[in-house]
Amino acid sequence: MKKVSEPTIGRLSVYLRLLMELAEADVDTVSSEELASRSGTTAAQVRKDLSLFGTFGKRGLGYSVPELVTRLRAILGLEKAWRVALVGAGRIGAALFGYENFRRQGFNIEAVFDTDPTKVGQRWNGLVVEADAGMERVLEERGIEIAVVAVPARAAQGVVDRLVAAGIRGILNFAPTQLDVPAGVVVKTVDMALEMEGLSYALSREEREPGAA
Amino acid sequence: MKKVSEPTIGRLSVYLRLLMELAEADVDTVSSEELASRSGTTAAQVRKDLSLFGTFGKRGLGYSVPELVTRLRAILGLEKAWRVALVGAGRIGAALFGYENFRRQGFNIEAVFDTDPTKVGQRWNGLVVEADAGMERVLEERGIEIAVVAVPARAAQGVVDRLVAAGIRGILNFAPTQLDVPAGVVVKTVDMALEMEGLSYALSREEREPGAA
Repeated sequence: MKKVSEPTIGRLSVYLRLLMELAEADVDTVSSEELASRSGTTAAQVRKDLSLFGTFGKRGLGYSVPELVTRLRAILGLEKAWRVALVGAGRIGAALFGYENFRRQGFNIEAVFDTDPTKVGQRWNGLVVEADAGMERVLEERGIEIAVVAVPARAAQGVVDRLVAAGIRGILNFAPTQLDVPAGVVVKTVDMALEMEGLSYALSREEREPGAA
Repeated sequence: MKKVSEPTIGRLSVYLRLLMELAEADVDTVSSEELASRSGTTAAQVRKDLSLFGTFGKRGLGYSVPELVTRLRAILGLEKAWRVALVGAGRIGAALFGYENFRRQGFNIEAVFDTDPTKVGQRWNGLVVEADAGMERVLEERGIEIAVVAVPARAAQGVVDRLVAAGIRGILNFAPTQLDVPAGVVVKTVDMALEMEGLSYALSREEREPGAA
């Protein structure tokens, strides 16, 4: 299977969400046109994206919803539950800890770390916030595979260096900073202001050229 | 100026962040190669993206950092401060309220709404959480232009319909659901599990084909 671009992976995740909604509503088949219109792309793009992973669907009959859900979950690595640690128990950490879509897609937060002594020892559902000093040991004991970094920008690189040294290969970063990691480690940085700038671009364009949005 | 794709706008935002860091460090010029390597793309892509908006930079001399910051801010609609309302004062709302990058880029939260009587009346920095019943009046009085929706999925469409009826044209949605809006209204849905699935894809691929990541 050849390497697939990030935008393609993003679209596959969007298709999977729509298909899961259809499956919950007991819908059996779906056309590429329907998937396209509900995910803001074209039917040709849907067919091209799905064809990367082999043959899906039958001409004129559309795609089988349950089959496509299974195949997309396999492609995206969602057949297993992932063991996740959250580093940073501040406001963003708390929001992520309660984030329903993580659990639904099989990303289970199994450890929470912070440096702040007033946070260490707090009970978050079944978990206790732990001191970051013991992080490496806990990561190993619990077989953590993915870390979510929700610490201030100035602390992020230090945390990431420790995570990488402890064998973590996947990092979701919410700190507003660029991170250096060695080859073989994947970092995704989430910047919520980027999405906001997509809005300000579109709204300003509308002001400059009415009807453009 | 022709319409620009969403991935391009996203890259412009990334370039702007790097340039702002360089400007803070008093760096005067930057090459397309440097911008590319720090933003995970190619120099050719950087030049192509920037050429969409006219001529920047001088061959062999690179781009002027302050000039490029000014131009990118103008393109992205960041020359002005945007008046933003936050709907939903739960955990995600609280994280967004404190999110530094919003303020830094000129997105100012000027109102917070919730339906929960235990939240209404809470003081969040200089603001008071207000009952959603009075939302339309407050949006108009404060000249709100953008709304951030951080309510449960089942409540999101109803909130969005009210926002659209009240004249809001830009919505940043954190509810895990698809939203219908009329033409001329821009919605960006942020799903933090999408980014997580980019990680699980890369890590599973690495397990299947070592060395692929």
